[in-house]
Amino acid sequence: MKPLIKRRMFTPGPTPLLPEAVLQALVTPMHHRKEDFKALFREVQEGLRQIFKTRNDIILLTASGSGAMEAAVTNLLEPGQKALVGVAGKFGERWLELTEKYSIRTKTVEVPYGESVDPAQIGAALAADEDIAAVFVQATETSTGARMDLERIGALVKVRENTVLVVDGITGLGTMPIQTDTWGLDIVIGGSQKAFMVPPGLAMLSVSSKAWSRIEKCSRPRYYFDLLRERKGQKEGQAAYTPAISVVQGLKAALDYGFRQGIDALVSNAALLAGATRAAVIRWGMKIFPRAPGNAITCFVPPEGVDPSRVISLMRERFGVLISGGQGSMKGKILRVGHLGYFDFLETLGMIGCLELCFIEAGANLEPGSGAKAAAEFYRAAVRAS
Amino acid sequence: MKPLIKRRMFTPGPTPLLPEAVLQALVTPMHHRKEDFKALFREVQEGLRQIFKTRNDIILLTASGSGAMEAAVTNLLEPGQKALVGVAGKFGERWLELTEKYSIRTKTVEVPYGESVDPAQIGAALAADEDIAAVFVQATETSTGARMDLERIGALVKVRENTVLVVDGITGLGTMPIQTDTWGLDIVIGGSQKAFMVPPGLAMLSVSSKAWSRIEKCSRPRYYFDLLRERKGQKEGQAAYTPAISVVQGLKAALDYGFRQGIDALVSNAALLAGATRAAVIRWGMKIFPRAPGNAITCFVPPEGVDPSRVISLMRERFGVLISGGQGSMKGKILRVGHLGYFDFLETLGMIGCLELCFIEAGANLEPGSGAKAAAEFYRAAVRAS
Repeated sequence: MKPLIKRRMFTPGPTPLLPEAVLQALVTPMHHRKEDFKALFREVQEGLRQIFKTRNDIILLTASGSGAMEAAVTNLLEPGQKALVGVAGKFGERWLELTEKYSIRTKTVEVPYGESVDPAQIGAALAADEDIAAVFVQATETSTGARMDLERIGALVKVRENTVLVVDGITGLGTMPIQTDTWGLDIVIGGSQKAFMVPPGLAMLSVSSKAWSRIEKCSRPRYYFDLLRERKGQKEGQAAYTPAISVVQGLKAALDYGFRQGIDALVSNAALLAGATRAAVIRWGMKIFPRAPGNAITCFVPPEGVDPSRVISLMRERFGVLISGGQGSMKGKILRVGHLGYFDFLETLGMIGCLELCFIEAGANLEPGSGAKAAAEFYRAAVRAS
Repeated sequence: MKPLIKRRMFTPGPTPLLPEAVLQALVTPMHHRKEDFKALFREVQEGLRQIFKTRNDIILLTASGSGAMEAAVTNLLEPGQKALVGVAGKFGERWLELTEKYSIRTKTVEVPYGESVDPAQIGAALAADEDIAAVFVQATETSTGARMDLERIGALVKVRENTVLVVDGITGLGTMPIQTDTWGLDIVIGGSQKAFMVPPGLAMLSVSSKAWSRIEKCSRPRYYFDLLRERKGQKEGQAAYTPAISVVQGLKAALDYGFRQGIDALVSNAALLAGATRAAVIRWGMKIFPRAPGNAITCFVPPEGVDPSRVISLMRERFGVLISGGQGSMKGKILRVGHLGYFDFLETLGMIGCLELCFIEAGANLEPGSGAKAAAEFYRAAVRAS
């Protein structure tokens, strides 16, 4: 017997699409140089300001989040300038690849996979070098699920006139509180395919006036990712080059949806689903991998003797569910399931039950139903407490 | 905290829509008098023949299933002719309403809600009256979830030259084996909004040559539901009046999907989901309502002291899930959840967990996770056995 299965992504991104967003893109023809699109574009920027909790400019780039990371590096820093990079996993390493590629003199504050970058170490590195012009960190490290203390890191950078703080918030936005202005985050980067519930294709950056001052002075050549050129046009709802129109349309629908729920409600929803999933993982006797986990994903260590890649295959074959394994040095050691964006409790509970069946089939000694029991108990306590 | 919820229908119909079917209807403009639609219409008829397991003509009507039930009555029987109606719930009563409305002399074989019509009683009623021109029954009675023994009833009618058997298969098709030709079912009726995974708007009837002979002789006036007129046009892919074009388009996509899975696989999928849900219900100490349940729905009795309407409200408010209560004399006494069509195990498992939480909130003394445990055990045994 081959039961009917629906394909579902429980990956850290791309994430499930909001149907209203897909339909909006599908049914409304739009030209990016006409007035209706310009108005839509500005509404999307205003909506993103509320998500980012900022009054800074929002720039949309037709690129993945990595493109926006590159834009931040090439618009801010000349060759030979100094940067400090917090590295806690694969996406911290991506900042390093970028700064190295662009001949930036880089210092790192590095922690093992699963740990969070230590703000005290950031503080010490900054204190030791007045020339550090930019600090690059993640809000949450997607490869490990670890959450960074952006508020403390922001406080350290805010007081330095010549240093800007650049935050990769790609999995952090919409899953953890990010107070861009209050915490002094100069550039915050997001990607459409994460908590925003729309397809890949758009990256967004909030840019503070402190960051703009540096960008204005930066003479490094850049063309497609020229933030100054984008700032000029985007105030009028115009991207310099053809934007991913359907994703902008979808993003408007998703922001409308997000605001109906309330942004903080989206964050607490991710927290609820993450908490329920972790309750199951812990009940199964498995270890949550990061010391300070964010809500975007649950990253955990399967039991001895169970091959994580077998569990991943079984989830796909038996139940049509995509979950993720480890990246980089964590390959074959951990599992990751997503909570960012358009997920709800019912399907998360179903996913937990299916994951349990796959673990049992892969040789783990689990009591059937124990994960659902733990998740249900967590849910009851969480809803009662609120 | 108000967690994100996705709206889901676990009702006995309408059922969840197949996304490919909705998109097909949305993106392809079609005119019902042009060649491409005629070809599509004939493909849909051929696909339905495979679902119905028949070589009989398939007639599509733009109507709900009740319209097709009326068409069967008014096309087959003159005023004053005699019919036998098997009544085991609200939809059996609908046959009675129709035969009475159209001045048909009606005998009934009636059983209490929850029971199945007894073929022996049908046989006795037929033996007692040579003039019975038609027998009307359900394949499964949607108001109670009971399954009828169509094979035995078919054998009783098949041998009578002047009697036709009309089966309301609206919830039975795609959820239980229905062998139209082998069992001698003269008219079988389906509805698009049930196991077919598409929106309401289309009903379908398979019509045997024995039924056509009677329809040809029937002089009762009929206009919109004139099956003879439809037979003529529909052989060429043309409905007499404007058909629900988008539903026909969706039905083609759904049939393509059904055939990828295999029709018997769709039935066994419904059986798996029904079995898992019933394992949970029984573990909770509740009673499955019908004595011989079909796979289309699980119909069960909530525990003493728990108000079913409260459970229905909680499912909608907490989890966005629609389930159904009782109809007619069963109002306020039972609950019904659907398995017909585009459902899979993961969401059924999630639904079970959510239903358990709602029962607990409504005052039932259930062990959290016990339903998921029973469902998971059922799944493991079912998959291992296959």
